[in-house]
Amino acid sequence: MAQAAYYEGNRSIVHGRGEMVAPRAGEVQLKISHCGICGTDLHIFHGAMDARVAMPLVMGHEMSGTVHEVGEGAQDYELGDKVVVMPLAPCGACPACAAGHSHICHNLNFLGIDTPGAFQSYWTVPAYTLHRMPAQLSLAHGALIEPLAVACHDVRLADVKRGDQVVVIGGGPIGMLVALVAQQAGADVIVSEINPYRVDLANRIGLRAINPGATDLLEFVMQRTNGAGADIVFEVSGSQAGASLMTELLRTRGLAVIVAIFAQQPKLDLFRFFWRELRLKGVRVYESEDFKTAIDVAASGALPLDELITDIRPLSALKSGFEDMDQGGRVMKILLEL
Amino acid sequence: MAQAAYYEGNRSIVHGRGEMVAPRAGEVQLKISHCGICGTDLHIFHGAMDARVAMPLVMGHEMSGTVHEVGEGAQDYELGDKVVVMPLAPCGACPACAAGHSHICHNLNFLGIDTPGAFQSYWTVPAYTLHRMPAQLSLAHGALIEPLAVACHDVRLADVKRGDQVVVIGGGPIGMLVALVAQQAGADVIVSEINPYRVDLANRIGLRAINPGATDLLEFVMQRTNGAGADIVFEVSGSQAGASLMTELLRTRGLAVIVAIFAQQPKLDLFRFFWRELRLKGVRVYESEDFKTAIDVAASGALPLDELITDIRPLSALKSGFEDMDQGGRVMKILLEL
Repeated sequence: MAQAAYYEGNRSIVHGRGEMVAPRAGEVQLKISHCGICGTDLHIFHGAMDARVAMPLVMGHEMSGTVHEVGEGAQDYELGDKVVVMPLAPCGACPACAAGHSHICHNLNFLGIDTPGAFQSYWTVPAYTLHRMPAQLSLAHGALIEPLAVACHDVRLADVKRGDQVVVIGGGPIGMLVALVAQQAGADVIVSEINPYRVDLANRIGLRAINPGATDLLEFVMQRTNGAGADIVFEVSGSQAGASLMTELLRTRGLAVIVAIFAQQPKLDLFRFFWRELRLKGVRVYESEDFKTAIDVAASGALPLDELITDIRPLSALKSGFEDMDQGGRVMKILLEL
Repeated sequence: MAQAAYYEGNRSIVHGRGEMVAPRAGEVQLKISHCGICGTDLHIFHGAMDARVAMPLVMGHEMSGTVHEVGEGAQDYELGDKVVVMPLAPCGACPACAAGHSHICHNLNFLGIDTPGAFQSYWTVPAYTLHRMPAQLSLAHGALIEPLAVACHDVRLADVKRGDQVVVIGGGPIGMLVALVAQQAGADVIVSEINPYRVDLANRIGLRAINPGATDLLEFVMQRTNGAGADIVFEVSGSQAGASLMTELLRTRGLAVIVAIFAQQPKLDLFRFFWRELRLKGVRVYESEDFKTAIDVAASGALPLDELITDIRPLSALKSGFEDMDQGGRVMKILLEL
């Protein structure tokens, strides 16, 4: 029977009967296989986005699935095709779309936030959002393509080069993926993270993680770089401490990449940006080429994706997933299997 | 008789006898013609840099002059050659120098701040700091080459293109020169400035200036750009209001250029940098190519440089220059003539 998980406000998740929406022209109905829980979903669960979302809301956008029914004009897809969705529906008419930045459209419809998502058995989406999965990519790993595409976008826009000294501040799922993709690009990467479980995990999967509470990260980086500083710092913590640290860590003309969602405006040392001719760049979601790269990298088997999956649970356990994430501690990525 | 103006701390300027330092190998002794008063000089006059400068200090680095004596190995120059000085003496050994960023050397000796400057009749400097002035460039205009080179550096690093919508926040001497150079590069430029004298001056010399206290600048820019926002904003005010405004004004992937010296760390809307994928770049002083560009542009006669010179006074009137700048009001650039 078709199932779905509904957010109904005030940390309430109701597991119930799912709908089956017949695909219209240009749409495809998917049978969902796996869907990960994103930090944004947790944010919605906390009620922080109640002004934006329509309730009851089916969240979920880090998914994999198979084609179940094809609407008119979407004949490129066949029943059973393994696919992932790039969950962005831009307006096509705003100045951002006109400038070729449709992924950050002024009126973006983010599937799973602004309209229903993938925490349900069947999900009907525009065919243009689909990316095919190669045969060797598992459906569980497919659910990591969306966050991996974020990391590929961030590393691409940062123009990470072989031999670059890179620091990633914040070792959650996105920070970890950014670090792995930057390392794949040939960078020498340090992850700064205070959660001991995440520090251990990072070190276990071949990254170099440091707890800045225990080790002086600035001194560590300066020693490694003969006093020059880091080429690129990815800020994935969204904290004042992170914003201050990134500014101190960078070499002359180094680049700070803002990946995190800053809920508060931090103070930023713009004198240092002037003095060292530092650069800063905000990066958000992904473009189609990043989804393609993410699929290629995941399918190549080069990344330790299994190690990032903390647990796979049934959809009915979504609420327990949010609660475990709230606890913090020993959690990286939780997937739901439908 | 050789004269000099000495800063002796606590807003004290003493006008007295100048020294004549014989040029050593690789050095040239100049006879100073004109020297402008920079905002940094004013800052020193206020005592804000007493911890950095050695007193008594001869300030001054926006100068023009002629070659008076040539040290061993500096035979490229002949007596009477008209020259300007790029007042940077890098260490050549630090990580910034090693990376090719010697203009922002970690141990930079800024002539006129860290060692004696050009508020004196005779100034002995390394020959490598010299740039020749073409015959058609007047010595008064030569004293504007240094700040003009700042503007050329800023516009070059901002990669200003024909048709770009550019906003310059702050219409002092540097802001005005940045606006003029950006306009020369084909940009559509708006200067944001609250001082009515400077607004009028900007409009008189062919710029478009707006007082953000009287006109809603954000609305004005959005109307001009059909809701897209500005391509590039130069922040030359060093204020919280400027840091906030620049962030709001930019289009998706637009560029904020930090020209100002921020004495306080402003709050910066890093969420907006993420959301719109905005970019930011600090820019400081200049490189040799910017000095060459500045000389070419000034010599071409394309810029209304006379309009930027508020007054030319004898060196003995340096203190009155500082006092007029402190008053604010009807002042742009004050030059001293030796």
